[in-house]
Amino acid sequence: MDKTPGQPTPHVVIVGGGFAGLWATRALARDPVRITLVDRRNHHLFQPLLYQVATAGLSAPDIAAPLRHILRGQRNVEVRLGEVVGIDAGAKSVTLADGDILTCDYLVLASGATHAYFGHADWAAHAPGLKTLDDALAIRRRLLLAFERAEAAQSAEERTAWLNFAVVGGGPTGVELAGTLAEIARHTLRNEFRHIDPAEAKVRLLEAGPRVLSSFPESLSAKARAQLDRLGVDVVTGLPVEAIDADGYILSGQRVSARTVLWAAGVAASPLGALLDAPRDRAGRVQVDADLSVPNHPGIFVAGDLASVQQDGKPVPGIAPAAKQMGAHVARVIRARLRNEAAPPFRYRDFGNLATIGRMAAVVHFGRLRLSGLLAWWFWLFIHIFFLIGFRNRVIVLINWAWAYWSYQRHARIILGGNAPRE
Amino acid sequence: MDKTPGQPTPHVVIVGGGFAGLWATRALARDPVRITLVDRRNHHLFQPLLYQVATAGLSAPDIAAPLRHILRGQRNVEVRLGEVVGIDAGAKSVTLADGDILTCDYLVLASGATHAYFGHADWAAHAPGLKTLDDALAIRRRLLLAFERAEAAQSAEERTAWLNFAVVGGGPTGVELAGTLAEIARHTLRNEFRHIDPAEAKVRLLEAGPRVLSSFPESLSAKARAQLDRLGVDVVTGLPVEAIDADGYILSGQRVSARTVLWAAGVAASPLGALLDAPRDRAGRVQVDADLSVPNHPGIFVAGDLASVQQDGKPVPGIAPAAKQMGAHVARVIRARLRNEAAPPFRYRDFGNLATIGRMAAVVHFGRLRLSGLLAWWFWLFIHIFFLIGFRNRVIVLINWAWAYWSYQRHARIILGGNAPRE
Repeated sequence: MDKTPGQPTPHVVIVGGGFAGLWATRALARDPVRITLVDRRNHHLFQPLLYQVATAGLSAPDIAAPLRHILRGQRNVEVRLGEVVGIDAGAKSVTLADGDILTCDYLVLASGATHAYFGHADWAAHAPGLKTLDDALAIRRRLLLAFERAEAAQSAEERTAWLNFAVVGGGPTGVELAGTLAEIARHTLRNEFRHIDPAEAKVRLLEAGPRVLSSFPESLSAKARAQLDRLGVDVVTGLPVEAIDADGYILSGQRVSARTVLWAAGVAASPLGALLDAPRDRAGRVQVDADLSVPNHPGIFVAGDLASVQQDGKPVPGIAPAAKQMGAHVARVIRARLRNEAAPPFRYRDFGNLATIGRMAAVVHFGRLRLSGLLAWWFWLFIHIFFLIGFRNRVIVLINWAWAYWSYQRHARIILGGNAPRE
Repeated sequence: MDKTPGQPTPHVVIVGGGFAGLWATRALARDPVRITLVDRRNHHLFQPLLYQVATAGLSAPDIAAPLRHILRGQRNVEVRLGEVVGIDAGAKSVTLADGDILTCDYLVLASGATHAYFGHADWAAHAPGLKTLDDALAIRRRLLLAFERAEAAQSAEERTAWLNFAVVGGGPTGVELAGTLAEIARHTLRNEFRHIDPAEAKVRLLEAGPRVLSSFPESLSAKARAQLDRLGVDVVTGLPVEAIDADGYILSGQRVSARTVLWAAGVAASPLGALLDAPRDRAGRVQVDADLSVPNHPGIFVAGDLASVQQDGKPVPGIAPAAKQMGAHVARVIRARLRNEAAPPFRYRDFGNLATIGRMAAVVHFGRLRLSGLLAWWFWLFIHIFFLIGFRNRVIVLINWAWAYWSYQRHARIILGGNAPRE
């Protein structure tokens, strides 16, 4: 740190150690600031592979690394495990759950998004969403237990209800979950049960809109749907789910018995955005100025999924590359402020869009490049392994993958969280 | 199955998929029986490496494999996820928590052991023990959170209390936990904190008896103690812990502030032993006949940690090789019964004893062979990797280990189980 003697070092508080917060922190490594990075969890999570933990292909530590470890060499950062419960925008301070108050010169809010049930909070208990490692382990437990319950079922109706799976939401997460689930039922569990044939499981993907992967061109949506069909996923589009409870769901007035429903439909901004005195969009995201600062609060920035940014009439998407770019941009603006220079507005560089569907199937949209099938899958694999944080993890994940795809096996099929429930 | 037509196939119910139950199941693969293997969990656990999951060196799935997967090719086995809540020894039937009753011709109880607090049940909340993967993840969470709390502590007293660790019990598990914990504090976490130096953590190993690893010869106990000293563990022998609560423990009348106390002192047999009408020893283990059957119940067997077997005036130890041998022996006796042949009594073949202490330190006692230090550690590593179930796991575990020992890093330092508590 090249600090001017006599002047206090400016303090930057960054809330959230996801892609936006971590990239902002790293980009300020050589600047004359002291940074406090606050997160509720002790790890950075590589969210694009979270569905693999939920579907027992990877272990939780394979896709996460402790923030302290990632930042151990960056001496101007202090990592603080804690939950922000209050923000005073005027004083530029945040209050933590343990009562500590952190006051700063620059505040960066990058606390991301959570699932939204569109006013149906009671659905949450029956259709869990996938945002954290704990979510992934809870979903894994449900999926694996469903087959166990089907095996022990006393009646055909009960068996069918346990073998009916539904994934609500046809975005990338929903497509990944449905595709992998079909693969597990058809291949991974083959020969392991004596009273059921896991391949008889029905996996349904429910999308209220007209097509899956709506952020992709229509031709790739159609390809994705064809690949899902081939995997045995029953794709239903154009019908919104009307109700979800412990026994199943209702679709166009008809009740379907399904004991396992997963939620991949809605995303809402982190509730911390509401603690700022700032305009927000329908999903609760903070509508920031061109430099990602909060209107009327030039020392407060919002980056990542919590920020609502429009560019060329379209919203910047809530994906990892956008979050990293916003994080790095906030660091640039803070640096410019420290030097009394003007900072350029944020520009999102679109490097493309990709989604995986299942075993060796994916779609890729990079500018004019449109791929699907096996080639897209290799492309997807390469990109994801390459960007996975931490050298060790990459090697382990590669080996796990090679093994999983060669043998159809998934090594993390371990039910954690207490004994078999007594239902 | 070579089944005699017209005669029903004898039904064998095996309770517990640990070493004893799984080895009994596998040994009956070619016999004309149908087997139901009941376990509360869906996986076989390689318990000798459980301390590595607790200390963040391995992921939970690294040392566990689904029982269904292990046994998928053995067509005379049905795996049932369920908890046994009742046993009718006369009718040879077990009742599961979901109400199902399994009646059989041969019943094998191999439900293992749990921790015992010697009449101090209230200590359990403050000093968790290590028997299951869930236990290991709970201990990992406590260990990692302790350093986080120390970092955020507001006073020197609080900091010290969070940096004081105690492990109660100087057997193999206690020695492994204390040694690894010292290694984490001194090496793994170096440079990661800004307000504490993790190397200042005090790790104490409390053994009420005169020496650690009392099942080894005295010379090896002394070697182990010297190796623990070198790792920085404060070994206290000859003093029983008098009390444990949320703030610490009392030793010879003196209160020590320590927020993290782990329990590796006592083992009690699984409570299922008490459901049999059979004599039991002080630890609750069932005193079986020479062929491992329960006195007066020739069709019921007990194997593994739940069985109390004396040989040449000494108890057969509660370790994995003994459990496997008992499981295999029960299978032999059942086979002999089916053929109306006499079965030999059980003889434990002692292949030796080994315990690891920490980074490249272990003790080995195989007959006349006594090793300690690096050579013993390599021996220990080879044996443990060799016996780890499932080819894939072995490769992954080896890579994780190579990485951990080369870099001093532990890849599973992920705090799971909700957000940072609000204490």
